[in-house]
Amino acid sequence: MEEDYLYHLLEQMTIDEKIGQLLQLATPFFKGSSTKGQITGPMKEMGVTEEVVENAGSVLGASGAKEISNIQKKHLESNRLGIPLLMMSDIVHGFKTIFPIPLAIGCSWDLELARHAAEIAAKEAAVSGIHVTFAPMVDLVRDPRWGRVMESTGEDPYLNGLFAKAQVHGFQGNDLTDTKRVAACVKHFAAYGAVEGGRDYNTVDMSEWQLRESYLPAYKMALDAGCEMVMTAFTTMNGIPASGNRTLMRKILREEWGFDGVVISDWGALKELIPHGVAEDEKEAALKALQSGVDIEMMTLCYTSHLKELVATGEIEEQLIDESVMRILKLKNKLGLFENPLRGANETLEKDIVFSAPHREVARQLATKASVLLKNDDVLPLSQDQKVALIGPFADNHDVLGQWSWLGSKEDAVTLKEGLETQLKSENLNVAKGCDVESRDERESKIALQIAREADVIILALGEHSWMSGEAGSRTNIKLPKAQLNLLNDLKQLNKPIVVVLFNGRPLDLMDVTEKADAILEAWYPGSEAGNALADLLFGNVNPSGKLTMSFPRAVGQIPTYYNHYNTGRPKGAPDAQERYVSQYLDSSNGPLFPFGFGLSYTSFEYKDAHLSSNIMKQNETIRLSVKVENIGEVIGEEVVQFYIRDLTGEVIRPLKELKGFERITLQPGEQKEITFTITEKQLRYYHSDLSYKSDKGKFMAYVGSNSQDVLAVPFQLM
Amino acid sequence: MEEDYLYHLLEQMTIDEKIGQLLQLATPFFKGSSTKGQITGPMKEMGVTEEVVENAGSVLGASGAKEISNIQKKHLESNRLGIPLLMMSDIVHGFKTIFPIPLAIGCSWDLELARHAAEIAAKEAAVSGIHVTFAPMVDLVRDPRWGRVMESTGEDPYLNGLFAKAQVHGFQGNDLTDTKRVAACVKHFAAYGAVEGGRDYNTVDMSEWQLRESYLPAYKMALDAGCEMVMTAFTTMNGIPASGNRTLMRKILREEWGFDGVVISDWGALKELIPHGVAEDEKEAALKALQSGVDIEMMTLCYTSHLKELVATGEIEEQLIDESVMRILKLKNKLGLFENPLRGANETLEKDIVFSAPHREVARQLATKASVLLKNDDVLPLSQDQKVALIGPFADNHDVLGQWSWLGSKEDAVTLKEGLETQLKSENLNVAKGCDVESRDERESKIALQIAREADVIILALGEHSWMSGEAGSRTNIKLPKAQLNLLNDLKQLNKPIVVVLFNGRPLDLMDVTEKADAILEAWYPGSEAGNALADLLFGNVNPSGKLTMSFPRAVGQIPTYYNHYNTGRPKGAPDAQERYVSQYLDSSNGPLFPFGFGLSYTSFEYKDAHLSSNIMKQNETIRLSVKVENIGEVIGEEVVQFYIRDLTGEVIRPLKELKGFERITLQPGEQKEITFTITEKQLRYYHSDLSYKSDKGKFMAYVGSNSQDVLAVPFQLM
Repeated sequence: MEEDYLYHLLEQMTIDEKIGQLLQLATPFFKGSSTKGQITGPMKEMGVTEEVVENAGSVLGASGAKEISNIQKKHLESNRLGIPLLMMSDIVHGFKTIFPIPLAIGCSWDLELARHAAEIAAKEAAVSGIHVTFAPMVDLVRDPRWGRVMESTGEDPYLNGLFAKAQVHGFQGNDLTDTKRVAACVKHFAAYGAVEGGRDYNTVDMSEWQLRESYLPAYKMALDAGCEMVMTAFTTMNGIPASGNRTLMRKILREEWGFDGVVISDWGALKELIPHGVAEDEKEAALKALQSGVDIEMMTLCYTSHLKELVATGEIEEQLIDESVMRILKLKNKLGLFENPLRGANETLEKDIVFSAPHREVARQLATKASVLLKNDDVLPLSQDQKVALIGPFADNHDVLGQWSWLGSKEDAVTLKEGLETQLKSENLNVAKGCDVESRDERESKIALQIAREADVIILALGEHSWMSGEAGSRTNIKLPKAQLNLLNDLKQLNKPIVVVLFNGRPLDLMDVTEKADAILEAWYPGSEAGNALADLLFGNVNPSGKLTMSFPRAVGQIPTYYNHYNTGRPKGAPDAQERYVSQYLDSSNGPLFPFGFGLSYTSFEYKDAHLSSNIMKQNETIRLSVKVENIGEVIGEEVVQFYIRDLTGEVIRPLKELKGFERITLQPGEQKEITFTITEKQLRYYHSDLSYKSDKGKFMAYVGSNSQDVLAVPFQLM
Repeated sequence: MEEDYLYHLLEQMTIDEKIGQLLQLATPFFKGSSTKGQITGPMKEMGVTEEVVENAGSVLGASGAKEISNIQKKHLESNRLGIPLLMMSDIVHGFKTIFPIPLAIGCSWDLELARHAAEIAAKEAAVSGIHVTFAPMVDLVRDPRWGRVMESTGEDPYLNGLFAKAQVHGFQGNDLTDTKRVAACVKHFAAYGAVEGGRDYNTVDMSEWQLRESYLPAYKMALDAGCEMVMTAFTTMNGIPASGNRTLMRKILREEWGFDGVVISDWGALKELIPHGVAEDEKEAALKALQSGVDIEMMTLCYTSHLKELVATGEIEEQLIDESVMRILKLKNKLGLFENPLRGANETLEKDIVFSAPHREVARQLATKASVLLKNDDVLPLSQDQKVALIGPFADNHDVLGQWSWLGSKEDAVTLKEGLETQLKSENLNVAKGCDVESRDERESKIALQIAREADVIILALGEHSWMSGEAGSRTNIKLPKAQLNLLNDLKQLNKPIVVVLFNGRPLDLMDVTEKADAILEAWYPGSEAGNALADLLFGNVNPSGKLTMSFPRAVGQIPTYYNHYNTGRPKGAPDAQERYVSQYLDSSNGPLFPFGFGLSYTSFEYKDAHLSSNIMKQNETIRLSVKVENIGEVIGEEVVQFYIRDLTGEVIRPLKELKGFERITLQPGEQKEITFTITEKQLRYYHSDLSYKSDKGKFMAYVGSNSQDVLAVPFQLM
C-alpha cells in the first residue's frame, strides 16, 4: 500500500479507532481465538469491552496458523476500516525448534549461526502466523543474581551489539514482505540489565556517561541493523521509569538516533508508572507515557481509558496520537498486512517446517558451539569403551530448553541420557538421578553411588531448574543447590574421574565444583537438541569451542565481576602496589574464576608473533594487528581469536580491556594461520565527560589472545 | 592577624614558597620530628629535598605537644617568611580516649553525646599540638562489604548530616582561636561510600540526581555547620577521579555551595590520577587537580615538581595557585597560628586531660548508647547470682577500639572480661577463648565446652579482627568466620542460654547466629571503655537503647539492603502482586534481617494515637505529627522515637520512607509521653529530574515508630 493511503486511512479514523491502534491485548480477548474472546480471571477484571477489542491494534502471544488466521478474519469482519491486527509474540531463542538460551548463543561467538537460528525461528513463527517477535534482548549484564542474564548475550557492549545485529538480520531479512520473516523488537530500552542487587524490576541508576558508554551501544546496533520496534524496560533510569522517560525515548531514541519505528511498553509497564510513584493514576500514566514516546500499551488500559479525555482537555495534542498510529500503520504496511492480512500463516508449511530435521540440525550445531569447556584434566573426550555412570538431576531431564521457550516442547527435547545412548552401548551406560535439583533422598543416592563404583568415569549432570533463572528468577545465592554439592562430595570419595555437565541460566559460583570435578562442561540450557549436542562434545565428535561472554565470579560477594572494568587509583598487582592499601577484597582475589572469553578445547592453540603494521597511527589511517595461531595439539579444533584494546589515558577513565574484534578459525593439528585485525580511529572513540564521542591522541595497548586474560600485548600510539 | 596582611604576605612569597604551602608531608620529613627528618623506605624514594620540606605548608600525622612544638620551632627557624606549619591528623573517633567507631556512634542517635565526644577528641588532640582533624567522615553507606562502613554513621542522608554537624561543632566549637579546638575536615568528597562491589577504592558511578538526593546532603550539612576543610575521595565519580573532578569541586562545592575553605587530596590521591588513567604523568595530574580545585596535595609531589613549570608555560595561571595559598593562610590565621605557632600544644595539659577519667566516662556512656540489642529471648539482663561462662575470641581481647584509632592504646582498653569482673564474683565467672577469630584448636574448644557445661548462661563474644574492616578492609563474605560459627554450634548443643556479644565494624550476615543465640548484643568496637559499658548493659545497669543506622542484610547476595529504597513497578506484597512476577529474590525475602532504626530494650514501648494537627498542609504552613509513647515494661528505658515521611507520587521516584526527625526520650515504667514532630514544606522537597529542589503538591504518608518497619501511618496532603 502506498504510504499516502495510510495518511488517508488515518484521516478516516475516529479518535477511538486511533487510540485502539495503541492497544495490545492478549490472544484470549479475540473472537477468533480458542477461547472465542471469553476471558476469565485477572484479564476479565481489566474491564475490556467488545468495542475496545474490535478497535485494538495488536495481539500478544498468539501462535498457530489456524488460530491466528481465525483471529484476523474475525477482526476484519468487525473492524470498521478493516485495519489488520499485528500478531506479536516472544520468540526469543527459537519457536518450536529451541536453540540454546541467548547467553549460550553469545558463548558461541558465531554470528552467522546466531543469524541463521533467528532466521529459522522467524520462519517457524511466520508460517504460524506471527508478525513480530519481542527479540533480540540485548541488555548488558554484569550481575548473575539477575535471572534474565540468560536472555542476554553477555557483558560486552560491542559483542552484544554484533549479536543484536545478527539476530535482527536473521529475523527480518531484507524485506519484511517476505512471509518467512518477522519484524524484530529490540528490548529492553534501556539498561534493564543494571537492576540494583540483581533483583528483577529493581531500580536502575547510573551516569549518562556510563549509560552511553556501556549500555546503549547494543540497542543502537540493533536499530542500525533495521530493527523495526523497541520495547521499554520495566525499570527506572535515574528516577524515571523507562516507560515514562523522555530522555530515553524522545531525546536519545527519537531525536538523536532518528528512530521512527514503533515503541511498545513491556507487559503492564505503562500502568506500573503508578506503583513506581511517578503517576498518581492511570490518566497521568497515559499522559506521561505518550508524551515520552510509548506508542503501544501492552495489556493495560491507561491509553484506552484516558487518551480521549486528555485530548479533549487539551493536555495532549491529537497530533501525538496520530504520530503513534502512523508508526503502527506503517509497520503493518511494511509487513504487507493490508494486502495480505493472513500473511505467512500457512498450515501446510507449518506442518512441514516447524521443528523439522534441518532446523533441529542447526540447533544441534549451535548447541555444540555454545557449550563451554571450563575444566579438563585429561578426562575428556570420553571413549566408547569406557563404562559411564551418568548421574544427577539433569541426567535424564527434559528441562533443557531454558526460559523463554514457551512454544518449545520439553518432551521432544533430547536429554543427556538420550544423547549418550547414541554413543554408548547399553552395557556401558548406567543412569541414576542421585538427587533432585534441590533435595536428596537416601535411596537415590545409594543407587548413584553404586553405579558410580562400577564405572570408569562419572558424568554428573547438575544445574538449576530452568525457572530458577529467567524473568523474575533472581537469586541471592548463585551456588548450585546443596543437595547437588553434597552428591558431588560423596562421589568424589570414590576417586573416579568426574565430568560435571552444567545446565543453568546464569554464571554460577563454581568454586566448590571446580575443586572437585576433573572436567566441567558448561552446557547452559542447550535447547531441543541438548543431549545430541552434548554427546558430540563429550565423545569428541565435535571439539568444544565456546567461550564465556559473562565472567564467572568467585563468590556472590564479588559481584559485579566483569572484564571491562576500570583500573582504580590503587590497582592490585601494580608495580608499586602496597600489600593492604589496594583495591581488593581481603578474602578473595579480584579476578573472576573464569574470565570473559574463556573456554577450553581438546587441542591447544599457541599464539605468537603478535605485531602491528605500525606502532604509530595517524588520525585518518588504519593499522593492522597480526598474530600467528597454531594448533599444537592432536586434533582439529576451532578457536575464537580475540582482539582487545586499552586506552591508557583518557579524559575519563577507560576500561582495562575492550573487545574490538574476534575471528572464529578452524585449525588442523599442526596448522598455523596468521590472523589480522584492522585498527581504526573509530574503534578508539569513547564518550567524554561532556558526552562527546571521539578519540584522543595518546598511548594504547592492543591485545590478542585466547580469552580476555591470556593475551599478547602490543603498544601503539594515536597521533 | 588582619586578613590584609595575609595578602601582603602572599605578595612576598616566591612561586616556590607558594607551591610549598600546597604540599603536605608526613611527620618524619621534618627536622623537629623524632626521626629528625631522616627518612627511610618508600618515603625516601619520593625524592623530597630539604628545600621542599622547608617550604612545605602542613604536616600529616604528627602528635604530641613536644614533638609538634619541636617541628614547628625548627620549621620557623628555616622558613624564610616564618609561615607556621599546619598540623593535621586523623582523629576520627577519639584521640587517646577512644569512643565507639562512628557507625556505632550513629547507632546512639545521640547528637549531643556525639558532639561531646568530638569535643573531647579535639581537646586531647589540641593540647597534643594538632590543628586539624580529618573528620568527620560522612560517606553514605549501603554496602557492608566495604570496610569503611565502620567510619560512617550509616545509610541515611539526613541522619549522617546531623552527625556531621554535631561532630563539626564538637571539633571546632565557635572560635578556632580556642586552643582546645581543632579545625574539622569533612570527607570523602564525594560518594566514596558507593564503591562498586563494596571493594575499596573501586569505581563510583551514579546519576547526578542520585548523587544530590542521597550522597551530597551530609557533606553540605557539615559545611553549613562551618567545617573548615574538605578531603577528596580516592574514587571516581562518573569517570573522573574526585581529585580531578571539576563538577564536584568547582561546580558544586565552590560555585554552588560557596565553600571557600581548603580542599585537600586524600593520601597520594592526586598522583593516583595516573593509575586511574586520566593523567598521563605527574604534570598532567597536577594540572587537572589544581584546575579542579585541590588546594593541598597529600604525600605526593605532583604540585611541587610541576606547578612552577605549568605557570611558566602559561598552562596554569598563577592566580589559581594564589587562591589556594590564600585559603591555607587564612586557615592558619583562623587558628591563630601566626600569633601563636605553638597553639594548644601543652605538655602539662596533655598529661592531665588526655585519656583522663572524665573523658573515659563519656566514652563509656557513648558505648552503652551505641550498642544495639538485636535479640533477647528473656535472657538479658543477667543477674549477679548467675554462673557465667564467658567464651569466645573477644572474651578477653583488647582489639575493641576498631580502625582509625591509631593513638588509642589497646592495652588500656577494658576487655569484656575485665568489665564483667566488676559485676561478678570470681566464682561466678569462668573465661575461655574457645577459638581464635579465624581458627580453632581442639584444646581451646574443650575448655570452653567444659566451662559452658558448668554455667547458667554463656556469654559468647564473637566478631571480626578490627583489621577486617576499615580502610582497604573489604570482604566478599560478611558472615562470621567459620571457626566461630562452629563454636556457636557446639555450644548450642548444651541447651544453655547463649548471649552473643558481637565485635565488628560492619553489618554482618547473622542468619545463623540469630537462629542459635538466645540474645544478641551488637557491641561494634566500643572503644576504650568497652568492657565496662558492655557489663553495664548485660547486667541491666543501663538499659540498651541503640538503634541500627545501617540495615543488616539476610545474605551478602542481597546487597544493597537499605531502608530508603524505592517501590519499583512490581513491589512484592502489593495488593495486586503476582506470586512470581514481582521484584524479589526466589531464595530470600526482600527485607533486611534487622532494619534501619531497629534495636531492642529491656522494656517495651507502646506507640498509639498517632495523628496530625491537620491532614491538609498548605505551602506556607506547618502541621504537627503527634504520638503517645508509653513504657509498658518493668524498667526505665530510653527510646528513639523515629519520624519518617513518604511522598506517594513525585516527578521522579521517591523512597518508601525517609527519616525526617527523631527524639530520644526516657520513660519510667508506666510513664507516657506525647511526642510531637513538626512537618514543614521544606522537609517535602526533593531533587527533580532537572535537578531543581522543591516540593510538589500531592499525597504523603507520615510514619512514626520504633524503627523503620514498625510504624504508625498517617496520611496527609500538601496543597
